[in-house]
Amino acid sequence: MASTRYDVLVIGAGIIGLSSAYHIKQNHPELSVLVIDRAHAVGQGDTAKSNAALRDTFTSTVNRTLARSSIEFYKHVQSEIGFNLNLDLVGYLWLLSENQVREYEAVEAEMRGQGTRLRTVEPDELGDLIPDLVLQPSSQQSGLMGLEGVEKGLFSIDCGTVAPELIVKFYENELKNLGAKFQFGTEAKAIRLAAKKSLGLPGEPLVWQDKVFKEVDTNHGPILADTIVLSAGTRNPQLLDPVGIDCMVKPRKNQLFQLRGSPLQRLLTTKGFNEQNTTPFTILPKGEVYFRPVPRERSLWVGAVAGLGHPFMLEEEPAADETYYAQNIYPVLSEYFPCFANLRPVNMWAGFYDVNSLDSTPIVAGVGNCIITAGLSGSGIMKADSVGRIAAALFDHKDEATLFGDRRISTAKVGLVNRAVEQEKFVI
Amino acid sequence: MASTRYDVLVIGAGIIGLSSAYHIKQNHPELSVLVIDRAHAVGQGDTAKSNAALRDTFTSTVNRTLARSSIEFYKHVQSEIGFNLNLDLVGYLWLLSENQVREYEAVEAEMRGQGTRLRTVEPDELGDLIPDLVLQPSSQQSGLMGLEGVEKGLFSIDCGTVAPELIVKFYENELKNLGAKFQFGTEAKAIRLAAKKSLGLPGEPLVWQDKVFKEVDTNHGPILADTIVLSAGTRNPQLLDPVGIDCMVKPRKNQLFQLRGSPLQRLLTTKGFNEQNTTPFTILPKGEVYFRPVPRERSLWVGAVAGLGHPFMLEEEPAADETYYAQNIYPVLSEYFPCFANLRPVNMWAGFYDVNSLDSTPIVAGVGNCIITAGLSGSGIMKADSVGRIAAALFDHKDEATLFGDRRISTAKVGLVNRAVEQEKFVI
Repeated sequence: MASTRYDVLVIGAGIIGLSSAYHIKQNHPELSVLVIDRAHAVGQGDTAKSNAALRDTFTSTVNRTLARSSIEFYKHVQSEIGFNLNLDLVGYLWLLSENQVREYEAVEAEMRGQGTRLRTVEPDELGDLIPDLVLQPSSQQSGLMGLEGVEKGLFSIDCGTVAPELIVKFYENELKNLGAKFQFGTEAKAIRLAAKKSLGLPGEPLVWQDKVFKEVDTNHGPILADTIVLSAGTRNPQLLDPVGIDCMVKPRKNQLFQLRGSPLQRLLTTKGFNEQNTTPFTILPKGEVYFRPVPRERSLWVGAVAGLGHPFMLEEEPAADETYYAQNIYPVLSEYFPCFANLRPVNMWAGFYDVNSLDSTPIVAGVGNCIITAGLSGSGIMKADSVGRIAAALFDHKDEATLFGDRRISTAKVGLVNRAVEQEKFVI
Repeated sequence: MASTRYDVLVIGAGIIGLSSAYHIKQNHPELSVLVIDRAHAVGQGDTAKSNAALRDTFTSTVNRTLARSSIEFYKHVQSEIGFNLNLDLVGYLWLLSENQVREYEAVEAEMRGQGTRLRTVEPDELGDLIPDLVLQPSSQQSGLMGLEGVEKGLFSIDCGTVAPELIVKFYENELKNLGAKFQFGTEAKAIRLAAKKSLGLPGEPLVWQDKVFKEVDTNHGPILADTIVLSAGTRNPQLLDPVGIDCMVKPRKNQLFQLRGSPLQRLLTTKGFNEQNTTPFTILPKGEVYFRPVPRERSLWVGAVAGLGHPFMLEEEPAADETYYAQNIYPVLSEYFPCFANLRPVNMWAGFYDVNSLDSTPIVAGVGNCIITAGLSGSGIMKADSVGRIAAALFDHKDEATLFGDRRISTAKVGLVNRAVEQEKFVI
């Protein structure tokens, strides 16, 4: 098969690959940019499986900066460019037990100090605003489960939800307008290194030779490129391990369940938190169970952030399992919010978090003529635009990236070789 | 099959597992300690495949401390306890090109400032001491390969070689004297978490339950333990991924080749560097090719530290390949040391480095009642005793470990959650 050559080849048409392609192409309209994806359209992988919530509540400066700039960019796209993204700043509400109030005291103070807009909601007010919430679960079951009472609500104002399928559509449109090419149904099988100066020896590139990334093998033949941008999400390690690059991430399955029914109507129309008059994105005091309002669908999406005991493993066709909901989510959810009692999911799906366990902060790294984006750890939607701008800065060999809103960030800090980021202390 | 229960179960009878078991058992002679290994004796895995060299030349304080304390402990075992370890402080010799002299200038100054005993050997002296060395390769081939002249020798005095099979024998003897048990031919298949307070529910431990490590499944049935020490080297991820712990390491194959022959005799009896009157452990200016003298066998072991392009991949039965030697090592080696010309390896073997790409520093981490040792990155032999003492400190929930020679180190710093180590700048 004849091979083609591009200035820039982006592997992965998820939100991160598209943002990276967009910012590179925007800076260099003259360059040929190709985006490939194994799926048949943009944003069909984990981008589509996300809970698609946005928050700026991070203790790490890097995470906060990446999220704030991206959220502001999405606001800008929606309000000023006029491209609707279903961006709804409904807020995040953490329902905290006494132990959690203590555990997060320092973190909360830190975030307030950093300018994160947080509002404390006392239990009385919580009870008034959310009549569906049981502040002090007292059933026999809740006692056995060790469920604690809600001592405090922590409401984060500049947070909300968005539609990733609209963000990727925005980037795709812009990329097409700029003349970038897309090739779908095209799966990267391997990225190939070559000797910088080939001597025509067998086994090249040899250990003692300087190396350069040369091409990507796909199910439709090789594609040659001067720069490869690797934004394949949880599939990055499959491409990077064979060339000896550790991008420090592992895949962890995330399941979401859609709940609908008249008992949820009051929760969906909660007043007092936001102008949408809906419940905020809400995190329960146990099991990191959360729900996200989807008023357009008159439903809620429910999930749980699983940690220890939840495997790192990639599946080809991840599926959600109602048993998982019944055993891991429902027992907690129905004690604090009895309005969910006896409802069964009307829909469910699963994707993967691309987890960076070490610092829960994205990796944007240049290794020679390869740029790697990885480790979004479940916060990819809310950081995508910033990550793309860092990838574009790396493409230009800049030490600093300028994010939306004129925020600056050192490119080396979020890389692999001289990585210097704080560990994130507020993971959900 | 009936299960047995131990206070401490150590998975892996390599040098790290044995050191960990030894220091825990020594601190707590009353506790039952079992060490299991898939092989039929101690030290049969990557411990046996190591180049078994020792150096204290690290820029990172943690690496330097771990290595110095371990080397001093091995000296103590050999000189004061009188247990021979074939410890020979023959020194390390880096042969540096002009570019490398520049590249490592700051690192060298840093190491000297930290008290590392380094001696500069000028080219003239190198030529006199090592007549087999070609200081300025000038063949057509060396020109094509881009081999540069040797501008400087950097000799590190408190470094050398050791016999890992004797170190593991020492630990094994001590452990047996203390009453620890060994079970060989026993492979850990899975480590199992349980709910701290079981409610007898299906699917336990559930996301919202507190968890504890309970047992290890093996090919000879389950083994129950109050504490599990995971020292399975490159096999750690296979056990940890399924329970959702990322120990941040990947396996990379390392091949060693044994060369012997009368043309090497002069090199083996190099004078002027050490009291053994042999060549130091020597690193060439290209391809990270190195050789290690083994005067007892009248041979040299030769290897190359491979990086980019060399896959992260575990093989069940790793084998060395003479083609690898011929293509990747020999071209460099024979230009700087023509005494190797036309010699073929008389023996070869392969093992795995357990690579922590991020900071090239060991990981010793406590996750509940599981202690994980990982990421020795090819310097396991030289850091093993210190790593075992940190594991023992974690077992006692101490914030600080006391290493041999009364050096102190924070246990949290080398862990996973609040990891705070410098990136090592001097990898070979």
